[in-house]
Amino acid sequence: MEGISLEELQLAARNHGMPLEALRYPVTPVGLHYLLIHYDVPAVEAEGWRLAIGDRSYSLDELRGRPAAEHTVTMECAGNGRARLEPRPVSQPWLLEAVGTARWRGTPLAPLLEETDIPEGTVEVLFTGLDRGVEGGEEQAFQRALPLEEALRGEVLLAYEMNGAPLPPQHGFPLRLVVPGWYGMTNVKWLSRIELLDEPFGGYQQSWSYRVRQSEEEAGEPLRRMQPRSLLVPPGIPEFLTRARVLDAGPCVLRGRAWSGWAPIERVQVSVDGGESWADAQLGRELDARAWRGWSWEWDATEPGEYVICSRATDAAGNVQPVEPPWNLKGYSNNSVERIQVTVRGR
Amino acid sequence: MEGISLEELQLAARNHGMPLEALRYPVTPVGLHYLLIHYDVPAVEAEGWRLAIGDRSYSLDELRGRPAAEHTVTMECAGNGRARLEPRPVSQPWLLEAVGTARWRGTPLAPLLEETDIPEGTVEVLFTGLDRGVEGGEEQAFQRALPLEEALRGEVLLAYEMNGAPLPPQHGFPLRLVVPGWYGMTNVKWLSRIELLDEPFGGYQQSWSYRVRQSEEEAGEPLRRMQPRSLLVPPGIPEFLTRARVLDAGPCVLRGRAWSGWAPIERVQVSVDGGESWADAQLGRELDARAWRGWSWEWDATEPGEYVICSRATDAAGNVQPVEPPWNLKGYSNNSVERIQVTVRGR
Repeated sequence: MEGISLEELQLAARNHGMPLEALRYPVTPVGLHYLLIHYDVPAVEAEGWRLAIGDRSYSLDELRGRPAAEHTVTMECAGNGRARLEPRPVSQPWLLEAVGTARWRGTPLAPLLEETDIPEGTVEVLFTGLDRGVEGGEEQAFQRALPLEEALRGEVLLAYEMNGAPLPPQHGFPLRLVVPGWYGMTNVKWLSRIELLDEPFGGYQQSWSYRVRQSEEEAGEPLRRMQPRSLLVPPGIPEFLTRARVLDAGPCVLRGRAWSGWAPIERVQVSVDGGESWADAQLGRELDARAWRGWSWEWDATEPGEYVICSRATDAAGNVQPVEPPWNLKGYSNNSVERIQVTVRGR
Repeated sequence: MEGISLEELQLAARNHGMPLEALRYPVTPVGLHYLLIHYDVPAVEAEGWRLAIGDRSYSLDELRGRPAAEHTVTMECAGNGRARLEPRPVSQPWLLEAVGTARWRGTPLAPLLEETDIPEGTVEVLFTGLDRGVEGGEEQAFQRALPLEEALRGEVLLAYEMNGAPLPPQHGFPLRLVVPGWYGMTNVKWLSRIELLDEPFGGYQQSWSYRVRQSEEEAGEPLRRMQPRSLLVPPGIPEFLTRARVLDAGPCVLRGRAWSGWAPIERVQVSVDGGESWADAQLGRELDARAWRGWSWEWDATEPGEYVICSRATDAAGNVQPVEPPWNLKGYSNNSVERIQVTVRGR
């Protein structure tokens, strides 16, 4: 790997990955969930804050007074895996850990949109956050749009609680969008405004960023739903600097979690020889159709030696994790199979 | 800066810095406080967990039933600033953000030690956590010792709450040590055992790590209390990739926080010309003698142009932040003055 630059390190130091042993928790504790902040966490007080939807506006109490729903949702950054690509696209240098699962509680978006009398010809719904910065040479608030039919899906929430408590500032206090199945950038934080558009949104985060393409000249394909991925709770204990694992010889249950934004996880396979051979893991019970699925596999790790363990998810739509990372210009959705170096030592 | 290696990036991706705009909060919200995990967050259930102190042992409920105290404490990693040193010592590559302030509630340690009848000749108290790993070639639990007189200070806590809630797993659930004024490594998380020693502890984290020295051959000086440091809430808005700041011309109140483990903060100075000239900031009210001190300074930023803003803390013991970083082999306590690039633009 070519060395990470000071600019990339500055981003890595302020954005938070989920330490991979936290895969043991079905719902990620607050403070372990991944976190990407495009600009700064804005200073927002609940008092005085209002959400504009078309020509209406709502206080936080008004939104809390509406019908509520809670979903357990796995959310992953579209840039997860970026730092594993060669050549490496320069941005937040995620390795594997830009994921987390939370219980998001809020009010469904669809009825709020319907109450505004959606004009004929509406094609997209635009969400604007309160975080501001300069990107691609232009000053902007973070903004993303959803196709109208997606915004009207019943499970899309305006969330004001995470894991049973008010949103922490870094996760979008007082209100954020939660769109189950879609990559993280969709879930606009610190919401201030929702607008109905009669033509597709052309803003920076939609038409330039978050598109899969091979060159600057190409328009590329917009990113939407999460590609399937499986990750392991790293077995044994770590070496401090290398994070390589050391495991005492003997039977060992490998555990992990797998998810896909396209369809339910149908199969997880495990390899302990770096992908030469694969065995089927056992899937755990479903937590929520919108959340990762736990799995386990009994490894008879009785023979001391060096192993490379991998896991690979397949979803019901037939998407399978690739072994080689699919390169693209901005380094999105690299869901290639994880490889963990494990030394099994004699007792 | 020479490029950051994959191993350093792996550490940066799992350990969490405090995004610097979070300096606006007197008490850092959970999930924004810095976090360094030497090995893995261990899986600990409150039920079944006990703390051994000498030949006694306590359940969590027993400790919660004892007299309680709460202190607001600023905690900083001893390696903060490491990635700014040249040549750069290889470990967790912190820039500036390894700090946070929390309300820690727990039971004072001293009475518990006194109840064990401290043997004549006791010199140190050893704290052992449940996190295990391999470091310096040896398998170990994280362990640190305190001189007896330090462990008997009234403000040293066995903490079971952070910011009014049970400790999150990543901050040491169910119990951690909190030693106000000392660098982060002192505050052993996931406590399992406390022992009284009749000779100084010679373990890895005490006799090899966390010592300031210039070469491998030198024994060096042990790290203890935090050196003074001041940091700014970055003004204006950030450019995404460089994190450089853009500010509209006009009056601007610069704000920040300063702390020292040695003595109260006595003075904070601000420079907007990269340290050529300095002005005194106004100190805010004291939150807790153990916590950072807020400060502010009115900057008449009416002239568009490029600025480098800095702040510099002095404590009542006469310690002042250096302008040039003091190099040492393992990259500890680099408290040199922060420099923030700001573009003031005409309106």
